[in-house]
Amino acid sequence: MGSQVINLQDKLQLISEHWSPKIVAQMNDYHLKLVKIQGQFVWHSHAETDEVFIVIDGSMDIELRHGKVTLNSGEIYVVAKGVEHKPFAAEECSVLLIEPAGTINTGEAGGNLTAPSDEWI
Amino acid sequence: MGSQVINLQDKLQLISEHWSPKIVAQMNDYHLKLVKIQGQFVWHSHAETDEVFIVIDGSMDIELRHGKVTLNSGEIYVVAKGVEHKPFAAEECSVLLIEPAGTINTGEAGGNLTAPSDEWI
Repeated sequence: MGSQVINLQDKLQLISEHWSPKIVAQMNDYHLKLVKIQGQFVWHSHAETDEVFIVIDGSMDIELRHGKVTLNSGEIYVVAKGVEHKPFAAEECSVLLIEPAGTINTGEAGGNLTAPSDEWI
Repeated sequence: MGSQVINLQDKLQLISEHWSPKIVAQMNDYHLKLVKIQGQFVWHSHAETDEVFIVIDGSMDIELRHGKVTLNSGEIYVVAKGVEHKPFAAEECSVLLIEPAGTINTGEAGGNLTAPSDEWI
């Protein structure tokens, strides 16, 4: 999968479901995942890893226990390992995530928004 | 550095030199680096790691021993560990790189395009 050009807009056309990250590329033991989000996610954290959010289209908030950050297209935020966060998007937003292969979207929280971590598009 | 929103266009305004990657974010032991490129780079490889190219503005080629790939804005390519490659851009192109902290831009090749691997902007 690493020897093809990945066009983010083409891949986004293949995604309709919200909050279900799809792998588009692998680098060493990390995955680059595209996800469309809208509405409220759940508070969660990832005990073992930082997590990179890169907004491709739209805008989103990442609520943190000490405040929140707003990300627009072309902006990046790194949620540090162990930090509780809750993504939110008023309108549909497309995000590129970078995190270790196998990282679960809901982290320690679980619940019905938990998505498979191994689906490629 | 991981607790701030990183705006790629704002960071690109701070870069004038070509072929000199600047770190904009850290995730675990990986760096996200912005680089402006123009002209021919050198053939090189990275024996220990894959390397992600994400084109932010413009277009570039990555020459490979078996052909070449062309990347436009919004496209990603992963150069696999150990694979010889030579980046090229006819016009100035802005690229986001993802690779382990300390990765040297010229890999095993060295030479006068070798840049520091620890400069943040």
